[in-house]
Amino acid sequence: MFRNQYDTDVTTWSPAGRLFQVEYAMEAVKQGSAAIGLRSATHVVLAAVNKTASELSSHQKKVFKVDDHVGIAIAGLTADGRVLSRFLRNECINHAFVYESPLPVPRLVVQLADKAQVCTQRSWKRPYGVGLLVAGLDETGAHLYYNCPSGNYFEYQAFAIGSRSQAAKTYLERRFEAFNNHSRDDLIKDALFAIKETLQGEKLTSSICTVAVVGVGESFHVIDQKTIQEMIDSMEIAEEAPAEPDAVQEEAEAAPMDI
Amino acid sequence: MFRNQYDTDVTTWSPAGRLFQVEYAMEAVKQGSAAIGLRSATHVVLAAVNKTASELSSHQKKVFKVDDHVGIAIAGLTADGRVLSRFLRNECINHAFVYESPLPVPRLVVQLADKAQVCTQRSWKRPYGVGLLVAGLDETGAHLYYNCPSGNYFEYQAFAIGSRSQAAKTYLERRFEAFNNHSRDDLIKDALFAIKETLQGEKLTSSICTVAVVGVGESFHVIDQKTIQEMIDSMEIAEEAPAEPDAVQEEAEAAPMDI
Amino acid sequence: MFRNQYDTDVTTWSPAGRLFQVEYAMEAVKQGSAAIGLRSATHVVLAAVNKTASELSSHQKKVFKVDDHVGIAIAGLTADGRVLSRFLRNECINHAFVYESPLPVPRLVVQLADKAQVCTQRSWKRPYGVGLLVAGLDETGAHLYYNCPSGNYFEYQAFAIGSRSQAAKTYLERRFEAFNNHSRDDLIKDALFAIKETLQGEKLTSSICTVAVVGVGESFHVIDQKTIQEMIDSMEIAEEAPAEPDAVQEEAEAAPMDI
Amino acid sequence: MFRNQYDTDVTTWSPAGRLFQVEYAMEAVKQGSAAIGLRSATHVVLAAVNKTASELSSHQKKVFKVDDHVGIAIAGLTADGRVLSRFLRNECINHAFVYESPLPVPRLVVQLADKAQVCTQRSWKRPYGVGLLVAGLDETGAHLYYNCPSGNYFEYQAFAIGSRSQAAKTYLERRFEAFNNHSRDDLIKDALFAIKETLQGEKLTSSICTVAVVGVGESFHVIDQKTIQEMIDSMEIAEEAPAEPDAVQEEAEAAPMDI
Amino acid sequence: MFRNQYDTDVTTWSPAGRLFQVEYAMEAVKQGSAAIGLRSATHVVLAAVNKTASELSSHQKKVFKVDDHVGIAIAGLTADGRVLSRFLRNECINHAFVYESPLPVPRLVVQLADKAQVCTQRSWKRPYGVGLLVAGLDETGAHLYYNCPSGNYFEYQAFAIGSRSQAAKTYLERRFEAFNNHSRDDLIKDALFAIKETLQGEKLTSSICTVAVVGVGESFHVIDQKTIQEMIDSMEIAEEAPAEPDAVQEEAEAAPMDI
Amino acid sequence: MFRNQYDTDVTTWSPAGRLFQVEYAMEAVKQGSAAIGLRSATHVVLAAVNKTASELSSHQKKVFKVDDHVGIAIAGLTADGRVLSRFLRNECINHAFVYESPLPVPRLVVQLADKAQVCTQRSWKRPYGVGLLVAGLDETGAHLYYNCPSGNYFEYQAFAIGSRSQAAKTYLERRFEAFNNHSRDDLIKDALFAIKETLQGEKLTSSICTVAVVGVGESFHVIDQKTIQEMIDSMEIAEEAPAEPDAVQEEAEAAPMDI
Amino acid sequence: MFRNQYDTDVTTWSPAGRLFQVEYAMEAVKQGSAAIGLRSATHVVLAAVNKTASELSSHQKKVFKVDDHVGIAIAGLTADGRVLSRFLRNECINHAFVYESPLPVPRLVVQLADKAQVCTQRSWKRPYGVGLLVAGLDETGAHLYYNCPSGNYFEYQAFAIGSRSQAAKTYLERRFEAFNNHSRDDLIKDALFAIKETLQGEKLTSSICTVAVVGVGESFHVIDQKTIQEMIDSMEIAEEAPAEPDAVQEEAEAAPMDI
Repeated sequence: MFRNQYDTDVTTWSPAGRLFQVEYAMEAVKQGSAAIGLRSATHVVLAAVNKTASELSSHQKKVFKVDDHVGIAIAGLTADGRVLSRFLRNECINHAFVYESPLPVPRLVVQLADKAQVCTQRSWKRPYGVGLLVAGLDETGAHLYYNCPSGNYFEYQAFAIGSRSQAAKTYLERRFEAFNNHSRDDLIKDALFAIKETLQGEKLTSSICTVAVVGVGESFHVIDQKTIQEMIDSMEIAEEAPAEPDAVQEEAEAAPMDI
Repeated sequence: MFRNQYDTDVTTWSPAGRLFQVEYAMEAVKQGSAAIGLRSATHVVLAAVNKTASELSSHQKKVFKVDDHVGIAIAGLTADGRVLSRFLRNECINHAFVYESPLPVPRLVVQLADKAQVCTQRSWKRPYGVGLLVAGLDETGAHLYYNCPSGNYFEYQAFAIGSRSQAAKTYLERRFEAFNNHSRDDLIKDALFAIKETLQGEKLTSSICTVAVVGVGESFHVIDQKTIQEMIDSMEIAEEAPAEPDAVQEEAEAAPMDI
Repeated sequence: MFRNQYDTDVTTWSPAGRLFQVEYAMEAVKQGSAAIGLRSATHVVLAAVNKTASELSSHQKKVFKVDDHVGIAIAGLTADGRVLSRFLRNECINHAFVYESPLPVPRLVVQLADKAQVCTQRSWKRPYGVGLLVAGLDETGAHLYYNCPSGNYFEYQAFAIGSRSQAAKTYLERRFEAFNNHSRDDLIKDALFAIKETLQGEKLTSSICTVAVVGVGESFHVIDQKTIQEMIDSMEIAEEAPAEPDAVQEEAEAAPMDI
Repeated sequence: MFRNQYDTDVTTWSPAGRLFQVEYAMEAVKQGSAAIGLRSATHVVLAAVNKTASELSSHQKKVFKVDDHVGIAIAGLTADGRVLSRFLRNECINHAFVYESPLPVPRLVVQLADKAQVCTQRSWKRPYGVGLLVAGLDETGAHLYYNCPSGNYFEYQAFAIGSRSQAAKTYLERRFEAFNNHSRDDLIKDALFAIKETLQGEKLTSSICTVAVVGVGESFHVIDQKTIQEMIDSMEIAEEAPAEPDAVQEEAEAAPMDI
Repeated sequence: MFRNQYDTDVTTWSPAGRLFQVEYAMEAVKQGSAAIGLRSATHVVLAAVNKTASELSSHQKKVFKVDDHVGIAIAGLTADGRVLSRFLRNECINHAFVYESPLPVPRLVVQLADKAQVCTQRSWKRPYGVGLLVAGLDETGAHLYYNCPSGNYFEYQAFAIGSRSQAAKTYLERRFEAFNNHSRDDLIKDALFAIKETLQGEKLTSSICTVAVVGVGESFHVIDQKTIQEMIDSMEIAEEAPAEPDAVQEEAEAAPMDI
Repeated sequence: MFRNQYDTDVTTWSPAGRLFQVEYAMEAVKQGSAAIGLRSATHVVLAAVNKTASELSSHQKKVFKVDDHVGIAIAGLTADGRVLSRFLRNECINHAFVYESPLPVPRLVVQLADKAQVCTQRSWKRPYGVGLLVAGLDETGAHLYYNCPSGNYFEYQAFAIGSRSQAAKTYLERRFEAFNNHSRDDLIKDALFAIKETLQGEKLTSSICTVAVVGVGESFHVIDQKTIQEMIDSMEIAEEAPAEPDAVQEEAEAAPMDI
Repeated sequence: MFRNQYDTDVTTWSPAGRLFQVEYAMEAVKQGSAAIGLRSATHVVLAAVNKTASELSSHQKKVFKVDDHVGIAIAGLTADGRVLSRFLRNECINHAFVYESPLPVPRLVVQLADKAQVCTQRSWKRPYGVGLLVAGLDETGAHLYYNCPSGNYFEYQAFAIGSRSQAAKTYLERRFEAFNNHSRDDLIKDALFAIKETLQGEKLTSSICTVAVVGVGESFHVIDQKTIQEMIDSMEIAEEAPAEPDAVQEEAEAAPMDI
C-alpha cells in the first residue's frame, strides 16, 4: 500500500479514518520479546522471555510488581514500559493512602489507558511503544488485562504479546477453556508451555524466562528460578512419553512463519 | 478527486470550504463495529455489536453508563470514546452536586459537542475519532442523540452508526414511525433486529451484542445476556414462520454492498 | 488560477495581498443550507432551511435565541455556529448583569466580529467556517446584520446566505424597498417566499424551515410550525390565482444554476 | 521575478534583505476601496468610498471616530482596521484618564505603528492588512498621517490610499500647495473632487462616500449625507461651465490603467 | 553560489558555519537611504538622506534623539529602527533615574547589541533589519558607534551606511585623519559633503537631508533647515572655484556602480 | 535500506514500529572513545581511553565521581555526559540530605534512565547522545550498569562501550566467569587488558587511559597514573613469556574489522 | 559526502550518530580571526588578531576581562561571544557575593559549557557560534581552557583557534614543553610569535593584535599597545640574525593551505 503524507504525525487522520502513527506504535509491541499471561478464577500468572543481550549482562526486567495485588509484564519499548510501571505504582500508592484499600484492578487499567490515549492526541508527543499485560487480584477476583499503545484495553482469560507470540496464542486458544479451574501450579505449567512455543525450538530454561504469580493468599511476586527450573524439568519428563502432543505443537510452531 | 495540501492539518481550509481532517475523523466512526439506538416516548434502547478480538479476550466495552438517566454507545476509536464517557460522567456529577438534580440530556449533549468542536480548531490536536449515541431520560421525556467528531449533534428517533450500519438504518427507516408508541420490549426486539441487519448473515447471539435501556422508572443499565438470548430465541421462532419479511430483509442486507 | 504555497496557512499573505484561508472559510458558508433575514422598522424575521439528514433524525438547529432582544440564524459549520451563539449569549448576560440593560445590537455584533478576526491572525487557529445573520431590537430600532468568517459585518435590510441563497437574494432585491413599512406578518410571508426560492422547486412545508421573529413588544422566538404551515397554505392559494408571478419566480429559480 | 522560499513566513528575510510577507500585506491596502485625506492649517478632512456590497446592505464603515480630536479612514482588510481603531480608542481613553488631556496625535500614531511592527517580527502572527489615514488636531495644529502595515508612518499634506488611489493622488499633487490656507469647505470640496477621481467615470453621490472633518472648534465627526450631496450638486454646476479642467481630469483618470 | 536549505531559518547553521538569515538582514540596511556619522574629539555629527516618498508627504524620520547626550541615525527597516530607538530611550531614562547620571554611551551600545543578538538565536523571531549609527558624548569624550543587525557593534571615527554609502565612505576615508581636530562646523560641512556623495549627482538641498549634532556644551539636536541650507550654499560657492576636487569626486561617485 | 520520512523526528514511529532517532543517538555512543567496566563481588573497576585531541591539551574527562559510592564512565557526546553526571550528583546529594544514607545504585540508575526516556518522547528535544557505565557499591554489593540513550539500562558483570569496544567485549566474555571472585588488583589488570584490546596495536600507557575503582572499604576514586603505569609494566613482562594468549588476542583484535 | 535531511535541525541525529548543526556551529569558530592562549605555571597569556573592518573603525573587541582572575579571548560570532562573556561576569560576581572568594576557574568553565550544551538540545535555539579561550588563575595555579560550541571544554598548555590557527598551533606544538617554566615576558613573546604565524606574511604590529595576561600578583588586564610594540620591535631585531628558524616558519605558514 502506498501512503505518503498521513503517517508521520499522530494528530493527522488518513482519508480512510486511520491514525497510522498509532498503528506503527502497536508494531513496536510486536518487536519486543514475548510475554504471556493467563488466569484461573483465583490466580493470574505472567511469564516473559528474558534473553540477555550478551553473556555479560543480566537480562532486562520485563515483569514489574506494581502493588501487592497487581503486577505487569511488558513487550516493546522497555523504557516506556518502565515509566508506565512507575505511573501505576504511584496510582496504587495514592489510592491506598486516600482510601486505605487497594486500587481495584479495572480502575487502574482505565487510568493507564487514559494516560496512553493522551499521547495519541497531542502533536508534540508520541504514542507509547509498549504493550502491558496487567495481572491483578481484587474483590471481584483475578483479572488479566492487555493495555495497548492506542489507549485501548481488553480483558483476557489468557493472552500473549511480543515477537512470535502467535505460537503462544495458538497454544493458549487450544487450552484456555480449562484455565478457569486450573490450580496455581497448572497455570504456571501452561505459562511455561506457552513461553516454550515462542522460542522456536530453542531450549526453555529458567534463565531465559521470568514467571510471576498473584492469587488468593499470595501477593504478586516473581517465582524463583530454582522452582521454575524444577517445573521445566518435570514438564520435559512428562513430554518425552507422549509423542502426539509434540506433533501438534510443532504445527503450532510452524504457524508464526506464515504471518 | 485529487487533493494534496489541504488535508493534513485540521486548521487548514480547502479552497472549497471543507475541513478534510474533520471529514477523515468521521470516517473513523464508520470503521468501528456497529451501534444502534432507538426510542419510544418513554424508553431509549442502545445496542452495540461486541465481537471479541480473539477467543481469549472479553469484548471491548462499547456501551457506557454515564449517570442513572443517561448512557452512551460508541463506534470508532474506543479509547477516544472512553475518555469522552469519563468527561460526560464528570459533567453529570458536577451538575448533580451543584443543582441537586440530574443534568438535562440536551445540555449534556451540547457540552459534549463543544468539547469535540475545540479539537477541530487547534493545530496541535486532532478531532476525536468516535461517534456517540447518547440515550437519556429527563423531564422532557426520552432522548436519543448522535454526537459526531465534527462537533455536531442530531436528535434521532432511531439511528445506527459504525460499519455496515446502512443495513440497520434501512431497517429502522422502514419501521421508525411505530417506535414512539412501542413498549420497552418491542423497542429491544427492534434493536436486536437492527443489530442483526449489520451482521451480514452471521448468527446473532447474546454473546456478540450488548443491549442497554433507560426509561421511565428504569435507570440506565445493560440488560443481562440471558434475557437477551431468550429474546433472540423467541425472535427466531417467530421469524421461521413468515418467509416474506425474510425476503425484504435479505434485500436490505444486500444494500450495504452497494455502498 | 494556479496557487501553490500561499493558501495553507491563515497567517500567510499571497503576493497579491490576499488571505486565501479566510476566503476558503467564506466558502464554507456557501455550503450550509440557506438562511435569510429581513426587517421592517419594528420587526426582524429570520428563516432557515432545516432539511433533516435522514427520516430518522430531527433537523439540526440553525436558528438560536441569544437574548430576549437578539437571535441568530447560521449557515456553514454548525458546530462553529453553536460555539459562537454561546459566546453571544454570555456577552448579553454579562452586559445585562453589569449595566441592567440589554446589550445594544451593534455592540454585540462588533464583539462577535472581533472574535472572528482573532482567528484570522493566529497561526495555530483557523477562521470560523460559519456565517451569522444577527437579528435584534434595541432603542435604535430593529437591526439585521451579517457576520462573516473574515471578521467583517454588514448591516442589511434583507439578506440571504448559504447554498442557493442567490435565488433568495434576487427575490429580496426585487422587493426590499417595501420591507421597512411591512407589517410583522408580511415580513414573515416574504421570508417564506424567499426561502421557497432556495428550494429549487421542492415543496415548501413547515417541516423543512424554521422561522423566528423579534420586534416591538415581542421577544425573539421561533414561530410554531402550525402557524407557519397555515401561512404557507394561504400563500399557495394566493399563488395559484396569478400565473405571472410564477413565471418570474421560475426565472429566479433558474438563476442559481448559472453560479 | 522568481521567488520560491522566502515569501511565506514573516520572519524570513530574502537574500536581498526584503521581507516579502510585509510587502504582500501592503498589497492588501491597494485592494480596499479608496480613502483620501487632506489638511489645512486648521482642519483635516477624511473621505472614503463606501460602495455597498449589494442593494440590500448598508455600506461597511470605513471612517471611524477615535476621540474628539482624532479619527481614521481605512483601506484594506476592514476587520483588521476595526480592531486597530478599537486599540486607538483605548489608547486615547487611557491617556485622557491619566493625564486629563487629549493624547497628542503624533504619539498616537507611533503607538499604532509600534503595534503594527510587532506583527512583522513574530512567526505566529501576520502583518495587519490595512492602511490607516489618521486625522487629528492637537496643540501643534492639524495632522494627517498614513500608517502602513509595515509599521511605518508618514505625515502628509494630503494622501490617497486604496484601489485606484493613483488618480486621486495625481489630483492632490496638482493642488496641494493651496491646501494649507484652504477654508474648511474648500478642503471638503477638494476631498470630493479627489474621491471622484477614483470612481473612473462613475457618478459621485453622497450615498457612496463618507466625509469626515476635524478642526479648530469642531470635533471629529462624519458630515451628514444631505450636506455632502448639496456640495456635490454645487460642484457639478460649477464644473459644467469650464470644459478644460475636465480634459485634464480624464487624463488623470486614465493614468491608473497603466498601473 | 547555490544554497537551498540553510537560509530560511535564523537558527540553522550552514555547513560552512554561517547564519544566512543574519546576513540577509544585513542586506536590508543597504536598502535604506544613506546615513553618515563622523566625530571630532568633542563633537559628533549625524546626517541622513530624507527623500520624501511623494510631494505630498513629509519625509520619514531617520534621526532620533535618545537622550540629551545621545542620538541615532538609522538605515534599513524604519519601523524596526523606531522600536529600537524607543528601547534606547527607556534604557537611558531608567539609568538616569537609578544612578542620577547619564548612561555611558558604550554601555548603551552593548545593551542595544545584546537585544539584537537575541533575535539571531530564537526560531520564532527574525533579526532586526536596521543599522544604527549611535552618536554620544560622555565623560570619556565623543563617541560614534555602528550597531549591526547581527548583534555586533563597532566604534568609528566616521562611517556611512545605507544605499550608495560606498561613495560617502570613500570620501570619509580620504579625509578622516583630520576629523579629530575639526571644529563643530567643519564636521557638519564634511557631513554634508559625504551626504552629497551618496546622491549620485542629484542636487543637495536642506530639504532632503537631516543633520544632527551632539558635543561639548551642546545637547543632541537636529540642526534647523535654514542653517543647513546656508552651509550648503556657502559650500557650493567654495566648490565652484577649484575644479580638481570635483574630478576626484566624480570618480568616487562612479565607484558604487561597481558594487 | 531506504528510509525517507520517519527518521528526522524523535516523536515519529516508522511503519515497522521503530524510533530511528533513538537508534541514531545510540550510534553516537559508538563514536566516542572506548570505556569498559567490570566487577567482582566487592569491587567495580571503570576504565576509559583518554587520548588527547592534541599534544597541547589535557585529555577530556571521561570518568566522573558521582558520590563516595558511585562513579561513571561515559562514551559518546561528552557534553551530554557531563550534564547527566551533574544530574546524578544532585540526586545523590538530595537523597543523602533527606534520608541520611547513600542513594542505592539501582534507584539512581532508574532515575537516570527515566530522564533519558523523557528525551525520546518530546518533539522539541533530542535523545541524549551518550552511554554511561555506572559503577557503584551499596548494601546489596557491587553493581555495574549500562545506561543507554534509549532510556534502557542493563546490569552487567562486565561491559565495554564506544569505538572498537567489540574487541574488549570479546576479551571480557572469554574471562568474565572468574571476575566475581577476582581481587581488586586482578580486576584492574583485566580492565587494562580489555582497554588494550580497543587500541588496535597501539601501545597502552597510563597517559592514555583513566582507571577508577570503588569497592568495600574504598570510595570511588581515579587511580593515580603512576600505579597504573607500574601495573602496565608488570603486565607486559608477564605477557612476553606466554605467546599463545597473544595469538588469541590478535584474533580478537581482528574481529572489530568485521563489524 | 551527500547529506540532505539531517543537518538543518539541532535536535535531529544523523543515521551515523552525528549532530551536524553542532558541527556547523564549530565551523563558525574557524571563520573568526585567530586567538591564541598559552600558560606557564604562574601566568596565562591570551592574544587575538584585531584587524579593523575599515580604516575608519576601531577594531572589534576580542579579549574580555571577566573578573580580576579570569579573562577570555574569542573567535567566531562576536555577538555570541559578548553575550557569553556577560554570562561569565555574572557567574563570577554572584559567586564572589555569596562565598566571598573568587569563582574557581574550572567551575566557571563547566558552567559555560553547560550553558552551551543546552543550546544543542532545544529545537527553538541554535548552538552558539563562538569558541572561547578562558584564561584564569586560582588556588590551583594558572589555567587555560578552550570552550567549544558543542558544550565541550578542554584544558590546554597552549592553543590557537580561528582562521589560519593551524600555523600557530604548529608553532606552539614545537615549543610548548618549555612553556611551563617560562617567565611572564617569554610567554608574551611566544604569544606574539604565534600570532605572527597566523598573519601569512603580513607584518605584525601592535595595532592589529591584543595581548592580555593574568598571573601571580597580576590581575587580568590587556597590555598597552606601546609595550607590545616594543616587544615586537625587539623580536624583529633578534629574528634578523638567525635565518634558519625563518625557514621552518615558512613551512608552518604553508601548512594551513592544505587544510
